[in-house]
Amino acid sequence: MTRADGRAVDEIRPVTIQRHWTDAPEGSVLIQCGKTRVMCTASFTEGVPRWRRDSGLGWVTAEYAMLPRATAERTERESVKGKIGGRTHEISRLIGRCLRGVVDMKELGENQIQIDCDVLQADGGTRTASITGAWVALADALAWAERKRIIRSASRALTDQVSAISVGIIDGTPMLDLPYVEDSRAMTDMNVAMTGSGAFIEVQGTAEGKPYTRAELNTLLDLAEKGNRELQAIQKEALAHD
Amino acid sequence: MTRADGRAVDEIRPVTIQRHWTDAPEGSVLIQCGKTRVMCTASFTEGVPRWRRDSGLGWVTAEYAMLPRATAERTERESVKGKIGGRTHEISRLIGRCLRGVVDMKELGENQIQIDCDVLQADGGTRTASITGAWVALADALAWAERKRIIRSASRALTDQVSAISVGIIDGTPMLDLPYVEDSRAMTDMNVAMTGSGAFIEVQGTAEGKPYTRAELNTLLDLAEKGNRELQAIQKEALAHD
Amino acid sequence: MTRADGRAVDEIRPVTIQRHWTDAPEGSVLIQCGKTRVMCTASFTEGVPRWRRDSGLGWVTAEYAMLPRATAERTERESVKGKIGGRTHEISRLIGRCLRGVVDMKELGENQIQIDCDVLQADGGTRTASITGAWVALADALAWAERKRIIRSASRALTDQVSAISVGIIDGTPMLDLPYVEDSRAMTDMNVAMTGSGAFIEVQGTAEGKPYTRAELNTLLDLAEKGNRELQAIQKEALAHD
Amino acid sequence: MTRADGRAVDEIRPVTIQRHWTDAPEGSVLIQCGKTRVMCTASFTEGVPRWRRDSGLGWVTAEYAMLPRATAERTERESVKGKIGGRTHEISRLIGRCLRGVVDMKELGENQIQIDCDVLQADGGTRTASITGAWVALADALAWAERKRIIRSASRALTDQVSAISVGIIDGTPMLDLPYVEDSRAMTDMNVAMTGSGAFIEVQGTAEGKPYTRAELNTLLDLAEKGNRELQAIQKEALAHD
Amino acid sequence: MTRADGRAVDEIRPVTIQRHWTDAPEGSVLIQCGKTRVMCTASFTEGVPRWRRDSGLGWVTAEYAMLPRATAERTERESVKGKIGGRTHEISRLIGRCLRGVVDMKELGENQIQIDCDVLQADGGTRTASITGAWVALADALAWAERKRIIRSASRALTDQVSAISVGIIDGTPMLDLPYVEDSRAMTDMNVAMTGSGAFIEVQGTAEGKPYTRAELNTLLDLAEKGNRELQAIQKEALAHD
Amino acid sequence: MTRADGRAVDEIRPVTIQRHWTDAPEGSVLIQCGKTRVMCTASFTEGVPRWRRDSGLGWVTAEYAMLPRATAERTERESVKGKIGGRTHEISRLIGRCLRGVVDMKELGENQIQIDCDVLQADGGTRTASITGAWVALADALAWAERKRIIRSASRALTDQVSAISVGIIDGTPMLDLPYVEDSRAMTDMNVAMTGSGAFIEVQGTAEGKPYTRAELNTLLDLAEKGNRELQAIQKEALAHD
Repeated sequence: MTRADGRAVDEIRPVTIQRHWTDAPEGSVLIQCGKTRVMCTASFTEGVPRWRRDSGLGWVTAEYAMLPRATAERTERESVKGKIGGRTHEISRLIGRCLRGVVDMKELGENQIQIDCDVLQADGGTRTASITGAWVALADALAWAERKRIIRSASRALTDQVSAISVGIIDGTPMLDLPYVEDSRAMTDMNVAMTGSGAFIEVQGTAEGKPYTRAELNTLLDLAEKGNRELQAIQKEALAHD
Repeated sequence: MTRADGRAVDEIRPVTIQRHWTDAPEGSVLIQCGKTRVMCTASFTEGVPRWRRDSGLGWVTAEYAMLPRATAERTERESVKGKIGGRTHEISRLIGRCLRGVVDMKELGENQIQIDCDVLQADGGTRTASITGAWVALADALAWAERKRIIRSASRALTDQVSAISVGIIDGTPMLDLPYVEDSRAMTDMNVAMTGSGAFIEVQGTAEGKPYTRAELNTLLDLAEKGNRELQAIQKEALAHD
Repeated sequence: MTRADGRAVDEIRPVTIQRHWTDAPEGSVLIQCGKTRVMCTASFTEGVPRWRRDSGLGWVTAEYAMLPRATAERTERESVKGKIGGRTHEISRLIGRCLRGVVDMKELGENQIQIDCDVLQADGGTRTASITGAWVALADALAWAERKRIIRSASRALTDQVSAISVGIIDGTPMLDLPYVEDSRAMTDMNVAMTGSGAFIEVQGTAEGKPYTRAELNTLLDLAEKGNRELQAIQKEALAHD
Repeated sequence: MTRADGRAVDEIRPVTIQRHWTDAPEGSVLIQCGKTRVMCTASFTEGVPRWRRDSGLGWVTAEYAMLPRATAERTERESVKGKIGGRTHEISRLIGRCLRGVVDMKELGENQIQIDCDVLQADGGTRTASITGAWVALADALAWAERKRIIRSASRALTDQVSAISVGIIDGTPMLDLPYVEDSRAMTDMNVAMTGSGAFIEVQGTAEGKPYTRAELNTLLDLAEKGNRELQAIQKEALAHD
Repeated sequence: MTRADGRAVDEIRPVTIQRHWTDAPEGSVLIQCGKTRVMCTASFTEGVPRWRRDSGLGWVTAEYAMLPRATAERTERESVKGKIGGRTHEISRLIGRCLRGVVDMKELGENQIQIDCDVLQADGGTRTASITGAWVALADALAWAERKRIIRSASRALTDQVSAISVGIIDGTPMLDLPYVEDSRAMTDMNVAMTGSGAFIEVQGTAEGKPYTRAELNTLLDLAEKGNRELQAIQKEALAHD
Repeated sequence: MTRADGRAVDEIRPVTIQRHWTDAPEGSVLIQCGKTRVMCTASFTEGVPRWRRDSGLGWVTAEYAMLPRATAERTERESVKGKIGGRTHEISRLIGRCLRGVVDMKELGENQIQIDCDVLQADGGTRTASITGAWVALADALAWAERKRIIRSASRALTDQVSAISVGIIDGTPMLDLPYVEDSRAMTDMNVAMTGSGAFIEVQGTAEGKPYTRAELNTLLDLAEKGNRELQAIQKEALAHD
């Protein structure tokens, strides 16, 4: 069985990661997963929010947003609406949790890294692309901080890789890395964030259409594991050359 | 190994479900899970939101909130802050998805059910208690609509049961149904919503502390399955007597 | 002349006051007046808002809110609307003033008590039930503070009782303690908060329908005095037993 | 006993009412009560809000606001803060109720009058000056509508006069028409809106400092009655000449 | 060619400036330009916003607003809408820039002047009238500060005069000082703020209708220069007498 | 005299314009002016806002925003703050006016074009780059509408070119196209939008530092004219090849 874009069910879309895409941020990455294109920046600032002070620990937080015309129909800006929608909140929190899962807050010290993921073009999997791209931006920001001697060791502060991919069941078939056209038809939709060591940071599986069995869950996790390993190889490759 | 409250690791807290707790709503339930106490109401209204009109389909939506002094320290009201926080948004969306997962929108017809889950007292597991309680309120609201002859059959509109429970890993030990004191120490925290037929509607597993392995995931799902079966028996019992 | 619910014109609805209804707050009361049901909590915190610092004086403030399905038709949440309505503001301020009227701020010292009145079910008289219930929660919070030796004397800090009741003129007849069905038909509606010593803290009489004469005002005040004496007996009784 | 400004305890401040103060509104009044100066406009528009349609009835609503430098210290604009404060809400609602109390909504027909009271200079009694001035603006707007033949009869639509005045107890002495310096020291503060026929539309008496007895209430109402009669004579005089 | 109001194309409307119009502000001016009427106040406060502290420099800021019934049709209050519109923001910023252009921030010292321009009646040119009037209020506030010995010299702090006037092209004819009826028909609309020494602080020329040539721009600037000289004479005259 | 980046005072920065930068929008342009990088999209939708209906005329509107890390220091998102700042409002309105100035609304018919300018990297001149880039996106969107036969003629709907450039006076020297480092030191800052035919759509010249003379204004306009001619040649070149 092949898919609309010719991929096999267990095949991810072409991925490219451009580092140093803009000059100002300590880490700045443009990630493309198929047509989905996300600008991920990591802003390193010394000091932590008030509630974290004098703890000796750092903090990592994330904000996700979509440009109004990332989508087929223009979406109204949340700044114009005057409030952030539930979906935006949910994704921002997810990205933050995934990255915090691979940072040693003690090694980071009382410093804060703010991740911004702005979707320039959306074709499914924007939250998982954000996590995968943001991790590279985070690595660059930590390397910057080490060079500036604000932290002792970027490699100790960053305890592992993290990447994420979506999987889902379409017409009864489990598939890897859903573009918008598949995502909107999926009975079950799952996002899986994994570390380089193969453990989970986040598993979010939702059945809006039809509940899924334990067996289906296992197949989806197998697919996600394969996808994440491939994404992690691409992340490593991107970091290998400056 | 026993826990602070004397339970075994695979034991849920005492649960009570009071139906018809207030008079106005079509479904009104007070659920208690240990010290966690949530008022769940289901408001049935004829007609659907504009984007759903002329589809022949109904809609189910949910809102979650916490009273300011449900917690040990008073939390500021979101109405006073003028905006809804990310956590509230995330939980409201979760509850809505879980209940939609067991409703046949065609059988519901162009009618809307609004679920409100207001936490009167919080001691961990407020989102899962909300789902479990809201399902009973939903069943009552559908029964009301059948009696009023607005829908043909409540039993056809409600395709299955749904309940939810939290599981987590504390000091390396997977445990079922975490109160606040355990939840705040958990390295991994997972919420699992299951149907009466044993399928998943939602699995959300998060590692803020330490990534979890596939084996740990499986143990957590086993615990959650046990807990959900017990909750579903309690739901059935509550619906058995008026 | 009897009323829809069989009461005499000068008869209050059955009132119950449950103390310690939830565990977290320093004072926690569930008050029922007929079908009106309000959860009143008093949160004691050391320290006062900035504008009050170094005055040696305490502060008491209140917030009132209604759960969305306290009413016959579901009301939209103010947190969702993103702003607090005029009615909510007005009632919150009223409750705060009434309780401040019986607190000796010097005896309270630089401590703050925040009252929350959340209406679980509304059938008229929610603001007066809130005041009556909140006073009991306030008394419990002050007793707690005395036991914790944060204040010297709860009885000196609480200078008097305060309760409140609604009165109104329906079809020319002055009546005591209006449920929703009467309240919505009243030409004049008055809320009267009185102390245990029989003085007024707040009199708010409004004629949306037909202006009222001085004689009518006097009759209404007589009714309110009777009702408040009865409520104060119930408050005392509630505090007599732990 | 004389007061800081030389008045007797039962004497109102000098009042002037300028009609047609600006050109655009159907009714436009500048009222001065001592140093308190309020611009009151009445905007007549055909049609009513949606919830009132097809009722055959009109509607009157009011909004109160203070210019930032009406006060001794500059107050931040509510438009800048992004929300309306409780005090503003409370006063806007009070003004609206008072004016609705003297309008026959059937005679007004499905038309709306919006009252705006903007305080240019504040020296106590801004809400009562607003009511007194707004009534004159309302009368002018109704006369305009009669001339335009939108309503049949202004005199039938406006059933009575309404004016309002503050009274209070300062150092044990009941006084009429409190300027800011007295108002801030008053143990009890009462606002009384009366019709030309001597009935009450609104009585709001608050004891922030010390509860007041029934006897004190009666003395305050006597003072308010005297003050309102004098204000109503000034209103009539203002309307006598164009 | 004469205009609807009989003026020549290079003639300004009658202008009056009343100082000390209210008592509380350090500078309080009512300016009338034709039917346009703006209340301009200058509030002097010691100290500067946080970002300006320890710079030795002062700050001047401005806020512009329109009363709801300043216009022919009532405009909804921005406080009620909960946000400030783009036009309001734009004008507030313009007024602030113009006044800062004639203040020596070192001479002002670490003090802040807040300008409020509230339009009581609008008939075109409200932003330019605001600037012209605000400058007089600013001069009064600086004189006050000198008398109070908070600043050394008002005349050194205020380096020059500033006034502003609108010009525009109507049916091909450049005209000075446009009332609303002309402004709404103008193909090009320009606001010009000039100092007493004849230099520009702000030139804002907009062609919503038809782009304008360099020659037309020059004619408009000539007209604006004439208008501003006349306004500056009126400002001086107003300051000459207390 | 040369500048920090080696340019002559009348030399613009290198400009590149990439069309079809993303797939979804009807017009999508990435413009770079030196380091300033703006994504400009034009969204064509049939129909106009309510206030414009049945006029036979179209509408063009614009929104400008900056990504949080477009700047050297991270700026907080306006969606998170819950309100749009004055600067954003001002620039959005400027862009809208400039583009409307070259659109024949009758030829556009009852259709709307929404321009979005999102600054990915900011180094001065973001508003002028937005106008210059947005015009190309607008041209593409109109061509799209002609191809889809929604409008008759793109070339008749788009009456002229428009581009914009900043000029300013730094240390007494007028200069063209200011990067951030110059812009922040400029005594006078002017933005000039010109049509292809050499007329002005918008001239905004502000002296925060030192008022500017008529002679200086003329020099600045000469520089802006030169810059705009060069930008217009680049716009044409970009449209020449698909």
